[in-house]
Amino acid sequence: MAREFPADSVGLVTPQTQHFDAPLRLESGRELPAYDLIYETYGELNAARSNAILVCHALSSDHHAAGYHSEDDRKPGWWEACIGPGKPIDTDRFFVVCCNNLGGCKGSTGPMSVNPETGKPWGPDFPVVTVGDWVASQARLADVLGIEQWAAVVGGSLGGMQALQWAIDYPERLRHALVIAASPKLTAQNIAFNEVARQAIMSDPDFHAGHYYEHGTIPRRGLMIARMLGHITYLSDDSMRAKFGRELREGKLNFGFDVEFQVESYLRYQGQSFVERFDANTYLLMTKALDYFDPASRHGGDLSAALAPVRARMLVVSFTSDWRFSPQRSREIVKALLDGDKEVSYAEIEATQGHDAFLMPIEKYLDVFHAYMGNVAAECATTGEDAQ
Amino acid sequence: MAREFPADSVGLVTPQTQHFDAPLRLESGRELPAYDLIYETYGELNAARSNAILVCHALSSDHHAAGYHSEDDRKPGWWEACIGPGKPIDTDRFFVVCCNNLGGCKGSTGPMSVNPETGKPWGPDFPVVTVGDWVASQARLADVLGIEQWAAVVGGSLGGMQALQWAIDYPERLRHALVIAASPKLTAQNIAFNEVARQAIMSDPDFHAGHYYEHGTIPRRGLMIARMLGHITYLSDDSMRAKFGRELREGKLNFGFDVEFQVESYLRYQGQSFVERFDANTYLLMTKALDYFDPASRHGGDLSAALAPVRARMLVVSFTSDWRFSPQRSREIVKALLDGDKEVSYAEIEATQGHDAFLMPIEKYLDVFHAYMGNVAAECATTGEDAQ
Repeated sequence: MAREFPADSVGLVTPQTQHFDAPLRLESGRELPAYDLIYETYGELNAARSNAILVCHALSSDHHAAGYHSEDDRKPGWWEACIGPGKPIDTDRFFVVCCNNLGGCKGSTGPMSVNPETGKPWGPDFPVVTVGDWVASQARLADVLGIEQWAAVVGGSLGGMQALQWAIDYPERLRHALVIAASPKLTAQNIAFNEVARQAIMSDPDFHAGHYYEHGTIPRRGLMIARMLGHITYLSDDSMRAKFGRELREGKLNFGFDVEFQVESYLRYQGQSFVERFDANTYLLMTKALDYFDPASRHGGDLSAALAPVRARMLVVSFTSDWRFSPQRSREIVKALLDGDKEVSYAEIEATQGHDAFLMPIEKYLDVFHAYMGNVAAECATTGEDAQ
Repeated sequence: MAREFPADSVGLVTPQTQHFDAPLRLESGRELPAYDLIYETYGELNAARSNAILVCHALSSDHHAAGYHSEDDRKPGWWEACIGPGKPIDTDRFFVVCCNNLGGCKGSTGPMSVNPETGKPWGPDFPVVTVGDWVASQARLADVLGIEQWAAVVGGSLGGMQALQWAIDYPERLRHALVIAASPKLTAQNIAFNEVARQAIMSDPDFHAGHYYEHGTIPRRGLMIARMLGHITYLSDDSMRAKFGRELREGKLNFGFDVEFQVESYLRYQGQSFVERFDANTYLLMTKALDYFDPASRHGGDLSAALAPVRARMLVVSFTSDWRFSPQRSREIVKALLDGDKEVSYAEIEATQGHDAFLMPIEKYLDVFHAYMGNVAAECATTGEDAQ
């Protein structure tokens, strides 16, 4: 008997892969000769092709944003809380597209893919990709899908940065941008955490300067450390306290270096399981894309100037306990948009969950998200403005 | 010609070592058969032996709190800002003692010392030591020095925890305790950071389960990662921004994985130089002592009950930008003391430097510190109370 998925889930989904033959010129100046993008879609594209939503993923997620891959799939996609029939990104109204970004390890061309020039995996020779490069590659995917203009581009964290970049780079190609739990650029502290993660990976003897595929090794230790560290920055101090407190796994101190506190056990598990499903070279690339994101840098640090081209209406959302990209960082985006007379709504959601809140079914958050999306028209107005 | 040290420095200092033959029973239940404590003293002990101040060190520092070890010593002791003639801990008035804690790597018995049972370095077999164990060992040092009662016990961070533990464990043996930038216990997030640091060290192939001395290796990579990570938690986001911003070392992105941002260069340097001067097994022990510190745990989580024995007057100091042990944590100590009708002063210092502020010559901080110490009598009052 077939499994019954929840009524508000998109249910069974199957990824598709699009091959691109035309080379992609990257911000670094290098060129990717040809590449694949793996993506999923949910809902139906309408005849006018005007109801498409692009969902952009964060550091360690992928194209599998909603639904299930098989009847016995244990976990749904990463944004199941927000995508589905009747959910904020309502698949009864919208056609949703989510692709794994270039440099990824889940099916799009990345370090694990074969470099046509050498016949071997790209490994560390895969070019450094930027948020702008991803947006350019996503625009090409839109071309292939016949989507001239997205109803909205939506993302959280690094995904929110892509939504912002879309609004800057392709102002005519989206009507709305939703920038959730993001930042206009990393702080020195953000970069520092990324650097420690990178050093953990790169100093792992099994890393072999990134050529570990050929050595039959995986820099497990380094990637585990990187993930453990990342995880701390995704949670708030409060949420860790609520989740673990100082609880001891065995109820008493053991005066040794095995796991003692629940939080240690949790982090080790998170780190170890991540190693099984993620590639270290991809992790390095994703952290670099984060570090490099700084649209204001080409405008002498003037974010408002960087956002001058924006025509999309914007929703910016932050979470009170997010210390990775705090509400203050979201407010910088909002202020720059307002200074440029752009249309922007801003919601600061009271939440204890830290940065990870953007992935979670927090009522107030879903309400705001839902309400905003309710005003995103599935049809293009003939004037080019939203019909609301 | 002899070098002229600053007039407000204690100048040239020479560490001394005290050997203890009597075994020390540890909180873990294990026993340290015999041990050495290396320590420094500054100023003169008065005839009544009533003007002694114990300074307790933090995670990675040692007995060298002030002055210089040689004529060409480049750097003074770690608390040079606060100890010396005319400084908050005024060596014209006080006799200052600072020892390297048990488990250390700077001369006191620790993992690098020889285990008399095996004739080899203790390595990972060195017993886990706690803040309470350190305080007990420091009390024995006080016995040897003929100091029945400290005028004050003073420390920042993990050192502040020792000052607090002194006030609990030996209420008659100190008149004042100064608890600076400390916390009554670590949060889950604090423990999580420690655990990532430990995993970085312990997963380094050169760690050899802690027996790296015998293998002729040093777990450099792991210790470097641990230190880089620690360093992020010592600085505030603001101080990192002020110090590094997003400045690029070569003025432009290089689209690679070499150092790009100044903050990366700084952290790598900090990590690499730390490896030359600190022992990985000691680092593990120090982080455990931090994790375990929780005086309230024996009183069902009631900090006020834990502090019931306290007779010392207390000064608690916190720094606004300290996110490792935030002002909120200091206020927990203050509240518990007030709830128990203890005498406590509290200062929350406006400072951008993060946790490291406690080491720095911040005017307001030095003023408060100075003023409080000015009221610490060098003489015991005959009533047993302070003569002020």
